[in-house]
Amino acid sequence: MYGLAVHGGAGSLPRAELDADRERRYRDGLRAALEAGRTILERGGSSLDAVTRAVMTLEDDPCFNAGRGAVFTYDGCNELDAAIMQGSSLRAGAVCGLRHVRNPIELARAVMEHSDYVMLSGAGAEEFAHSRSFALVPNTYFQTEERRSQLARVQNADPGVSPLTISHAGTVGAVALDESGTLAAATSTGGMTGKRYGRIGDSPIIGAGTYADDRSCAVSATGHGEMFIRAAVAHDICARMRHGGRSLDEAVHEVVSVELAAMRAEGGVIAIDRRGRIAMEFNSEGMFRGCVTADGRISTAIYREP
Amino acid sequence: MYGLAVHGGAGSLPRAELDADRERRYRDGLRAALEAGRTILERGGSSLDAVTRAVMTLEDDPCFNAGRGAVFTYDGCNELDAAIMQGSSLRAGAVCGLRHVRNPIELARAVMEHSDYVMLSGAGAEEFAHSRSFALVPNTYFQTEERRSQLARVQNADPGVSPLTISHAGTVGAVALDESGTLAAATSTGGMTGKRYGRIGDSPIIGAGTYADDRSCAVSATGHGEMFIRAAVAHDICARMRHGGRSLDEAVHEVVSVELAAMRAEGGVIAIDRRGRIAMEFNSEGMFRGCVTADGRISTAIYREP
Repeated sequence: MYGLAVHGGAGSLPRAELDADRERRYRDGLRAALEAGRTILERGGSSLDAVTRAVMTLEDDPCFNAGRGAVFTYDGCNELDAAIMQGSSLRAGAVCGLRHVRNPIELARAVMEHSDYVMLSGAGAEEFAHSRSFALVPNTYFQTEERRSQLARVQNADPGVSPLTISHAGTVGAVALDESGTLAAATSTGGMTGKRYGRIGDSPIIGAGTYADDRSCAVSATGHGEMFIRAAVAHDICARMRHGGRSLDEAVHEVVSVELAAMRAEGGVIAIDRRGRIAMEFNSEGMFRGCVTADGRISTAIYREP
Repeated sequence: MYGLAVHGGAGSLPRAELDADRERRYRDGLRAALEAGRTILERGGSSLDAVTRAVMTLEDDPCFNAGRGAVFTYDGCNELDAAIMQGSSLRAGAVCGLRHVRNPIELARAVMEHSDYVMLSGAGAEEFAHSRSFALVPNTYFQTEERRSQLARVQNADPGVSPLTISHAGTVGAVALDESGTLAAATSTGGMTGKRYGRIGDSPIIGAGTYADDRSCAVSATGHGEMFIRAAVAHDICARMRHGGRSLDEAVHEVVSVELAAMRAEGGVIAIDRRGRIAMEFNSEGMFRGCVTADGRISTAIYREP
């Protein structure tokens, strides 16, 4: 038995800007990520490999706010954050403020596997990448015209967009269970449109945007990062299962639809437990999401299902 | 009623290097921090002000690995991290990789109170500091000859020292309860001797080294930062109280002496709940610590009490 779910961000999506063609591109991206992860899991590969590969697929897809297609900072560049965690060992790796690493989730995993550290930042993290023979790319690799125009709209205070809406509809993540019963979670993002001052959101914070513990579940979150840090979203879901005896669904519901809703914090999570149960819950209008169902089929969704 | 505790780091202290004079200087530093915080609390001031002032006092004291007297990075400079959190509002602020801000805890608080963000990093964080009219200091302000020689000893693989031992015997923190019943926690550190690649430890990670929630307790941690991030130490203590019904002492004991001990993660925490109960537990040889007791008196300790 194995299980896999991915997300491509949550938010109040501007439905008017999500036409049929665009919706298809988002769904195709989610499907490609699920296929990449499923291929690994069905061959008996690890959940760690599956979430790494699924997230890399989404990082490479310019639709999503991670890797290529990331949102712009206030200063007009791209700064990327990512984290990964394995539930059996509680090993974790995280990176933030990257400007030149094509697939931030790969570097997060290298931090976990090849350093004494858990979290590396900025130019130092890229020095580590260089020492691990990562090929660095120019910052322009990540940039798309659409994201640049979103920055301009935010800076011009266009009432049709909000930095939050544009941005967290796009953070990507994956959670998986492999045949050996090990959980893993991974999250990657370009952060918030127009962010400044070296801002770090919840995605690379172990316990906030990303957490995995085989004694409870694996979680990847997406939403208003500052609120998600304050609520320690990913760890709190695990803690409600482990210390409070809640089921996966109960724990996810309490955090997303009670705690975060009370804080007016918009967003959602995907989570999986050791029985392969999957929860995908959001308190926003939609969340790009998908999973491999028990019979091995792929399903994707954006808005609430009837 | 109010309560206050501080720590100045935990670890396997080289007893041979802690002579009577040095021990007195550490105890004097802890006492000064407790007096600074107590002055605020006994006049009805906020727990947030008390922990800010207590930590600033320890940052200014070159004995401790925070602010002046911070440990050196691999590259021979000082990079400082800090975080603060208020238990009533779950508001939080954190900074990492600072090189020019005299009191990092003050900047963490400014992030909390005067920005839309929770966590700022590196040069961006210092640009924010400048925008808030913080006077920046040269990196040499933080440097002491003793810390420089510790870096040399670590780089020369002196068997009498370990980067961990030297460093986390020195991280500082404070937790407080004020008369209005509000909790707060604050932590500040120079990180690990010889750290590189923009390494971020647990201190500035909300949920790892620092957390406060009036529904459970306020926690400041000190120890092997990577392990403390993986275990989400501060939030896990809060979660065991809130979701698992443990008392403060039980929750602290389970995390410090069971979970962390099983991970061979050395360190300790200070914590306070809304009844003013204080827990100060460590699994290392010692932890620099102190508190204001119920009768308003100050006590300090380093090793285990008989």
